[in-house]
Amino acid sequence: MWKILHAVVVPGDTYTIDSNISRDDAFAYWFGAKVHTYIAELDGQVVGTYTLRPNRGGRGRHVSNASFMVDPSAQGKGIGRAMAEHCLNEARRLGYRAMQFNCVVSTNERAVRLWQKLGFNIIGTLPGAFHHPDKGYVDAYVMFRDL
Amino acid sequence: MWKILHAVVVPGDTYTIDSNISRDDAFAYWFGAKVHTYIAELDGQVVGTYTLRPNRGGRGRHVSNASFMVDPSAQGKGIGRAMAEHCLNEARRLGYRAMQFNCVVSTNERAVRLWQKLGFNIIGTLPGAFHHPDKGYVDAYVMFRDL
Repeated sequence: MWKILHAVVVPGDTYTIDSNISRDDAFAYWFGAKVHTYIAELDGQVVGTYTLRPNRGGRGRHVSNASFMVDPSAQGKGIGRAMAEHCLNEARRLGYRAMQFNCVVSTNERAVRLWQKLGFNIIGTLPGAFHHPDKGYVDAYVMFRDL
Repeated sequence: MWKILHAVVVPGDTYTIDSNISRDDAFAYWFGAKVHTYIAELDGQVVGTYTLRPNRGGRGRHVSNASFMVDPSAQGKGIGRAMAEHCLNEARRLGYRAMQFNCVVSTNERAVRLWQKLGFNIIGTLPGAFHHPDKGYVDAYVMFRDL
């Protein structure tokens, strides 16, 4: 798991997680209270992981939030999509009414396209909200879908 | 401080904070790591408080987030506005490039109008994202301004 988390956050081009995050802090985030954590296996290897949690507390807790990570060496095999479809079903099963992504980096076009295919809409653009390591300040999207 | 926090969260019509939040949990949120916390005084009494923090970590940490609470018995005296103006200056002083509110409840019209007067734009509407105690599922806004 740490291998995947570390491999995904170090390039710093997709997540607003500190690239230098420690193993302990990463695990606290990925396995925190109120977080459901899942893994994807291929040929007996863990190749992906995702979390499902309430996006906000109290009177916003009916909206879920999810985060997905695929081992970079296993990309392009539909693992992200399979996890996302599983995640939407899990969110429905757990009684959530919607799913929200708070900060989808606009330059992460593969992710944006996948979420759109899976029924998410860009409901807002956060101007310059992500400091891309190569491209500077780029927009990020808030994406949302009902369940 | 607890008197104000408690008075604001109990009605449950403005914040996605559990109305039953304990004093310890409320203080952990309001005085957490990376959080700057301020108070407003009137005639020697604490009548309001606000927090200023990075909205996200890592490569999103240049966008700030703020939360404001005014003692219900001191509303209508411009305390929210005074705190908000102070907050925008503090955010600039601390080097933030923008400020984002993630979940402004659409029925909290006084807050929405105040943020718009202070230069915030509604950059997205989260459909039904807030479960209002009287009005059911109502929209919430993502609001944003550059600094």
